[in-house]
Amino acid sequence: MNKNPIGIFDSGIGGLTVVKEIRKILPNENIIYLGDTARLPYGTKSIDAIIQFSIENTQFLISRGAKFIVIACYSSTSVALDAVQKKFSIPVIGVIKPGVKRALELSKTGRIGVIGTSLTIYSGAYEKAFKEFNSQCEILGRACPLFVSLVEEGWLDHPATELIAQVYLKPLKEDSIDTLLLGCTHFPLLMAVIRKIMGDINYVDASAEVGRELAQELKKRNLENPKGNGNLSIYLTDLSMNFKEIGERFLDEPMRNFSRISLKDK
Amino acid sequence: MNKNPIGIFDSGIGGLTVVKEIRKILPNENIIYLGDTARLPYGTKSIDAIIQFSIENTQFLISRGAKFIVIACYSSTSVALDAVQKKFSIPVIGVIKPGVKRALELSKTGRIGVIGTSLTIYSGAYEKAFKEFNSQCEILGRACPLFVSLVEEGWLDHPATELIAQVYLKPLKEDSIDTLLLGCTHFPLLMAVIRKIMGDINYVDASAEVGRELAQELKKRNLENPKGNGNLSIYLTDLSMNFKEIGERFLDEPMRNFSRISLKDK
Repeated sequence: MNKNPIGIFDSGIGGLTVVKEIRKILPNENIIYLGDTARLPYGTKSIDAIIQFSIENTQFLISRGAKFIVIACYSSTSVALDAVQKKFSIPVIGVIKPGVKRALELSKTGRIGVIGTSLTIYSGAYEKAFKEFNSQCEILGRACPLFVSLVEEGWLDHPATELIAQVYLKPLKEDSIDTLLLGCTHFPLLMAVIRKIMGDINYVDASAEVGRELAQELKKRNLENPKGNGNLSIYLTDLSMNFKEIGERFLDEPMRNFSRISLKDK
Repeated sequence: MNKNPIGIFDSGIGGLTVVKEIRKILPNENIIYLGDTARLPYGTKSIDAIIQFSIENTQFLISRGAKFIVIACYSSTSVALDAVQKKFSIPVIGVIKPGVKRALELSKTGRIGVIGTSLTIYSGAYEKAFKEFNSQCEILGRACPLFVSLVEEGWLDHPATELIAQVYLKPLKEDSIDTLLLGCTHFPLLMAVIRKIMGDINYVDASAEVGRELAQELKKRNLENPKGNGNLSIYLTDLSMNFKEIGERFLDEPMRNFSRISLKDK
């Protein structure tokens, strides 16, 4: 039993989709969320930079009492999870493996598509995670960098979004995948457009899977908070013009308790 | 006469379009360029953050001997030029005023369109600059945030780019502007698509205008370098996967002399 908060970080506010799912599954748990909005997006940065940022984010969350770290950023999980796990003694999970496990449960043909930022796809992190669990499956990765900007612009069902989605998803459609893994926090918001193009296949949004994985891990380590109000504190390294509007789109509830924090000042 | 370099900074590598033009007009001048690629883009950050980043960038360039600062970033010029000019004693110019002057020279009807990132447009910096020179003109600003991502994706003449440009530019077309100012380093690369939609009007890319303004200022202050090879040194705060490919698209020559620099280490 442990009343300390779960520490969750992302490059920005997209990780609030993960927070939303964790709050549903673990309503007692206190959460501190760090969005590194001053340096977002991570998907266009170098691997070295993302490792450095991820370590700084984890240090901040630990300094605030985190008992468990969830990396809610796919780019960071792709290239920095190992480094963060090695550096710190508290447990750390990312967003990739939980989604991979779920996709393998759902897929019948073993032809699984993964979409994400260029960094997530080209890092090979998904191939590696899939091969760890099942060496027979065929993984088709596709980078969809414009999806992030389209979601931030709020063009969730715009004809341009559909046209871009058609271009990005065409190879996956042609390869007859039976399961598609959404490997970026922003992509679930484009679900309607993606489903229109890809049709009746299985879809995996890892956000909910991460919550289940976290619940198991907390239980196993006896780190659960058996009763509590489940407070959520949000820290952002920058407060941009429309962060609240976009953040609430991801969190699906009002953003009440947030503050700006400079990682240098900790 | 002064052999010290001109210091130029941008949030990323888009500012290399400004470098390209300055090198044409001032071939003797040595240039040090700082691209803050670890924190790009600035257009989605807060005003406070951009001011802080801009001051740090300027400090770095001055520490490397810069005799004159050019802010090649439209978002930074929009919200941080005044703060940088106040903070430092060496001369500093931005990318907004030179383009504004040129647009006013070209426009016959006084109906002038400006496109840029959301921050550049909503900051009101262009309205302010136009009104300073001419109170009669009518300025129509339009934020085109997806243009940046489309250029970075390399979709310069993709049907999706044309569709998005039609949506963004429609109000400017309907308002019968006779001059369009491209208020972002990335936008000149979309010139073909923009021209297809807007037709035969005047276009202003401030990059070349900044070079002319800089030449005048150097002469006035007796800071010119009368002879020299015009060395270009490029410093980037992060080296991402495809920075060289994108950078050379902007610079229009091979990127030879570049290094990664951490602003904390200076």
